[in-house]
Amino acid sequence: MLPEHCAPVPLEHAYRLMNHGPTVLVSATHGGCDNVMAAAWACVLDFAPDPKVTVVLDKATRTRELIEASGRFALQLPPRALLRLTVGVGTDSARSVPDKLQRHGVRLFCPPGYDVPLVQGCVGWILCERIPEPHNEQTYDLFIGRVRAAWADERVFRQGRWHLDTAPDELRTLHHVAGGAFIVAGPVVQG
Amino acid sequence: MLPEHCAPVPLEHAYRLMNHGPTVLVSATHGGCDNVMAAAWACVLDFAPDPKVTVVLDKATRTRELIEASGRFALQLPPRALLRLTVGVGTDSARSVPDKLQRHGVRLFCPPGYDVPLVQGCVGWILCERIPEPHNEQTYDLFIGRVRAAWADERVFRQGRWHLDTAPDELRTLHHVAGGAFIVAGPVVQG
Repeated sequence: MLPEHCAPVPLEHAYRLMNHGPTVLVSATHGGCDNVMAAAWACVLDFAPDPKVTVVLDKATRTRELIEASGRFALQLPPRALLRLTVGVGTDSARSVPDKLQRHGVRLFCPPGYDVPLVQGCVGWILCERIPEPHNEQTYDLFIGRVRAAWADERVFRQGRWHLDTAPDELRTLHHVAGGAFIVAGPVVQG
Repeated sequence: MLPEHCAPVPLEHAYRLMNHGPTVLVSATHGGCDNVMAAAWACVLDFAPDPKVTVVLDKATRTRELIEASGRFALQLPPRALLRLTVGVGTDSARSVPDKLQRHGVRLFCPPGYDVPLVQGCVGWILCERIPEPHNEQTYDLFIGRVRAAWADERVFRQGRWHLDTAPDELRTLHHVAGGAFIVAGPVVQG
């Protein structure tokens, strides 16, 4: 079941969720093991008709292993309300802290019809199928995902775009600066 | 000569300029022809010892041609003060508007020792050498650059990080939402 306020986003608008460069949480599952990590280096690669994203995943991460094994992952956007959770899952590794998800209060849900766990409390979710690119993955730690489905919190993203001007502070996206400090998405200007 | 307030950034801190997902201007030159375009899809790929970035460049763009011919380009961060310029160079193509740089008030400078033109009034500049990756470039329009030098406006970036909390609005970075609307970098929170 989808959480409250979580509404489907048409595939052609999925890239808009990440267009403004937010920090993401990366989630994956394989063999009954879920994991979530934080990543600042995620980006749109294409928007339509075949939307794609990139994300850089260090070889030391458990989440990368799960993605390599399952071929699926999700990128999702933590808002300010999930600041501590984001720093927590970005700092601890499941290799040394096996209960990191519980420790940092991560609650997962699976959208109907898919078997990738998503993080509750995020404001956007992008579910991807890995496009295997062994050279990129080995040389650059760069993974490419084909977007299969997307959802967003309709309080801040609807009709295919963000509406952050009227959003409560707690629902604004985070953009990592350094050392656990984040810039919060500010006002909108029209050029 | 470097513009006022423009100070070198050590290579190991160059990634911090783009960590928070700003929209960039891409500049390049070849055969006496300069060009500048806007790109929302640019990202850090690696930080040290060999810092790298990615940027998606459509095959229709003149800037991409210049990069393919010269092997060099720069990514730079336009602040709010350059909002109209950013939309202008992101909308017009040098193919149909040959004087687009003049039309949108783009003033260029070359940092000493390099022959890539940079845009005055930006708050960060990252000069790159293209790492040829024909498969990525042809299949995904994805270019990888090795960072060779970086500079920032010391009023907002110093000691290896952004100091946007005390920055005037005009110097805050832009993050493209859609259709010429941008989110301006907001307050900083510490996790």
